Amino acid sequence: MTNLILYNTLTRKKEQFKPLNPPFVGLYVCGPTVYGDAHLGHARPAITFDLLFRYLQYLNYKVRYVRNITDVGHLENDADSGEDKIVKKAKLEQLEPMEIVQRYTDRYHHHMEQLNVLKPSIEPRASGHIIEQQQFVQRILDRGYAYEINGSVYFDVEKYHKQYHYGRLSGRVLEDLHTQTRALEGQEEKRNPYDFALWKKADANHLMHWPSPWSEGFPGWHLECSTMSTKYLGTPFDIHGGGMDLLFPHHECEIAQSTAADGHEAVKLWMHNNMITINGQKMGKSLGNFITLDELFTGNHRLLQQAYNPMTVRFFILQAHYRSTVDFSNEALQSAEKGLARLMKAWDILPGLTPGEPGEFDVTSWKQRCFEALDDDLNTPVMIARLFEAVRAINLAGEGKASFSASALTELVSLFDLFAGQLLGLQKPEKERSQNDRTTELIEMVLQLRLEAKRKNDYATADRLRDELTRLGVTVKDKKDGYDWEWDS
Amino acid sequence: MTNLILYNTLTRKKEQFKPLNPPFVGLYVCGPTVYGDAHLGHARPAITFDLLFRYLQYLNYKVRYVRNITDVGHLENDADSGEDKIVKKAKLEQLEPMEIVQRYTDRYHHHMEQLNVLKPSIEPRASGHIIEQQQFVQRILDRGYAYEINGSVYFDVEKYHKQYHYGRLSGRVLEDLHTQTRALEGQEEKRNPYDFALWKKADANHLMHWPSPWSEGFPGWHLECSTMSTKYLGTPFDIHGGGMDLLFPHHECEIAQSTAADGHEAVKLWMHNNMITINGQKMGKSLGNFITLDELFTGNHRLLQQAYNPMTVRFFILQAHYRSTVDFSNEALQSAEKGLARLMKAWDILPGLTPGEPGEFDVTSWKQRCFEALDDDLNTPVMIARLFEAVRAINLAGEGKASFSASALTELVSLFDLFAGQLLGLQKPEKERSQNDRTTELIEMVLQLRLEAKRKNDYATADRLRDELTRLGVTVKDKKDGYDWEWDS
Repeated sequence: MTNLILYNTLTRKKEQFKPLNPPFVGLYVCGPTVYGDAHLGHARPAITFDLLFRYLQYLNYKVRYVRNITDVGHLENDADSGEDKIVKKAKLEQLEPMEIVQRYTDRYHHHMEQLNVLKPSIEPRASGHIIEQQQFVQRILDRGYAYEINGSVYFDVEKYHKQYHYGRLSGRVLEDLHTQTRALEGQEEKRNPYDFALWKKADANHLMHWPSPWSEGFPGWHLECSTMSTKYLGTPFDIHGGGMDLLFPHHECEIAQSTAADGHEAVKLWMHNNMITINGQKMGKSLGNFITLDELFTGNHRLLQQAYNPMTVRFFILQAHYRSTVDFSNEALQSAEKGLARLMKAWDILPGLTPGEPGEFDVTSWKQRCFEALDDDLNTPVMIARLFEAVRAINLAGEGKASFSASALTELVSLFDLFAGQLLGLQKPEKERSQNDRTTELIEMVLQLRLEAKRKNDYATADRLRDELTRLGVTVKDKKDGYDWEWDS
Repeated sequence: MTNLILYNTLTRKKEQFKPLNPPFVGLYVCGPTVYGDAHLGHARPAITFDLLFRYLQYLNYKVRYVRNITDVGHLENDADSGEDKIVKKAKLEQLEPMEIVQRYTDRYHHHMEQLNVLKPSIEPRASGHIIEQQQFVQRILDRGYAYEINGSVYFDVEKYHKQYHYGRLSGRVLEDLHTQTRALEGQEEKRNPYDFALWKKADANHLMHWPSPWSEGFPGWHLECSTMSTKYLGTPFDIHGGGMDLLFPHHECEIAQSTAADGHEAVKLWMHNNMITINGQKMGKSLGNFITLDELFTGNHRLLQQAYNPMTVRFFILQAHYRSTVDFSNEALQSAEKGLARLMKAWDILPGLTPGEPGEFDVTSWKQRCFEALDDDLNTPVMIARLFEAVRAINLAGEGKASFSASALTELVSLFDLFAGQLLGLQKPEKERSQNDRTTELIEMVLQLRLEAKRKNDYATADRLRDELTRLGVTVKDKKDGYDWEWDS
């Protein structure tokens, strides 16, 4: 038994974490829909549950972490594309959804790798589990909580609610939903507006569809997570995670589906990370503040003053508790960048410190307080504050104003690697980066010499130095009070 | 129309490449079975068809490249594992094939990236296309070329051969096969030993199985490629590639399946890369000479004298024509390593050469001869020999013994990037390396200034420069006729 306490959205309480079947832990997290680039909203759950995955493994649990890929999209042939449909005879000329799926899945993987997010144990695709989803629909039909109409199958929320409790996770009240839910076009056949599709008959334009007992069609969106989580983790399983935007209706519907199919809920602990805002506003395509990870890492967005390193983004997200909102702004990211640089620098000099007299910094109690922060519902802001306590002590030791005993130093080195590296998943700057810094320092040094030569009216040396730098690909621009320089592009 | 000529295994002739539906080209290549690490035998088709994919794209074709993942494996519960089966009640405690699939798929992707193999347009998984495979079986049953027995469905080779020609690709003669084919255990129900399974009923230990009209079971191995190639490329499509080991029975069976289902063949051009031997022997687990890519890149195998860079392996494979066998040995790899280093060095100095008088090297005719080599069934050994003609000319120019005109130099720079980089897919040594070179040049420059200061008896400047370098981590050692320097460790 460990001391890990996690907040359960279902009970609205922090609970001692007890695996159903120790030492095994089943963890399911809703992954991306791969019809576009991953954005800030994807980074947060990925990093939040990456931390949980890392910590559970550190605690010696055997974790099976399943994160799905939603690839059963709703791409349609565009009737307005202006192309002559009759010419579109060959398969190769047609839009192929799987080509789009592949492209954005590959890009998602690349961005997750940049954020140092570990790969899940299984990454199942919705399109790879059509049969299993059909079997799930059939079980719900057999137990009487769904109805078929015109080739589509809908979940009967009202009937379900008579027996169970629809709204248990989200706190929504069914009576209110009745008046609030809009009837969507093409869904007039539903008995109630809040009923949701388990299987949809495909219309003529729909590109992805499969045969089924009810129609040539495709599964409803909520169904894949109920199906794939229980296929790979059994039922019930330990933890289901995702962003708070998925709490309703997605996760509420997942609970209803599993309960209707099996008579009991599938998930013991629900965890939700809070949302991200941009300069205080909700992120949305219509607001022009929709920032993809690629844009963030390259700085290529009108709202961004610079490119942000993936580690800065990771650190920034971990600086907030996962159940708090996080507001992205250039100021906040730049401040995280500076903080991370301080942390990295201390981490870097730590192994080279000379042991001395035991100092005031108590490694043993510090270690305990770090674990207490993690155990307290993954309290990363407190955890990071603890790391900065160590940073201060390390810096003092670096300046010769304090010291650690040899044994404390050895322990601190390995604990810093554990907390900052293995658990928070921060990566030390790459070699190239530090190489870059050295090169920059060398150039600055030569330019400083040149400035001094100019002040002494030694223009021969000044010109010589500029020419040498030009030869090495550095363009020097003189300014009134100094210089600017840049690498030739 | 391009000048590309490719050898068609089906017609046993080199043929002018004519896409069925220009500018589109459909290319399907058999990918790995992901129950173990990729080995040398996986590297060769990946690199061969990567070159084809790159060249077709360079020729302005719109290529849809499909390379599958075989994940419907035949993992069984191990009855001899000594564990108490009754304890194995929880899903999480059980072996989950998809966890193994995920692990080796991720590793395969990593190794392909190391070899600079481009990602295919679509990478479909067999497990994601069970419904489509069942539909394919049904079409063959409907046309009378398969029979169901005990819940399994087998392809009726004899009946097919009466109407069509089984053996057309491989040249095998059906009458010979009858006597040569062993009857495998559990397959006694087949009418003829050479009949092959389209659908197999799963026995109790089989871990992956799906419902079907015939039984709870799984598709036969040959079926997935017929199904997924035509699903994404249509039928007929342009090119089907794979290793020669797959020619029989896999590709022969693919032809039979498609022809039986649709009345015509699905593939216009079949391409096969030849095999790899290790020190003259066939590679095999029982021979102890089975080398995975991971072992090759780390040197961690008793047959390997050193680690080999993925680019060395790529270059080594491209040095042979894809239809020749390739023998791996330390000597051959080390020789490829040296050759590649020479090529890389010339590539590196090329852009820095000073233009001069037009020399003997005729860039225009060289360019044409490079393309002729590629167009001649991807003749990479000739292509690489051409590159070394340029290397010799570049090295002479580097030594001041020859020169290129400014326009020839500009063209040669971009052609070298095209041939060595974009088409052969060789990667220049990483940026860090060139960053390293820049740093080294800067240090050398500062030390040169210091030497000059010393010669002018300006010891203040000389000491100042040495102190600045020391501050940056460079230790300078004075020698009688100059200096040595090194980074502080």
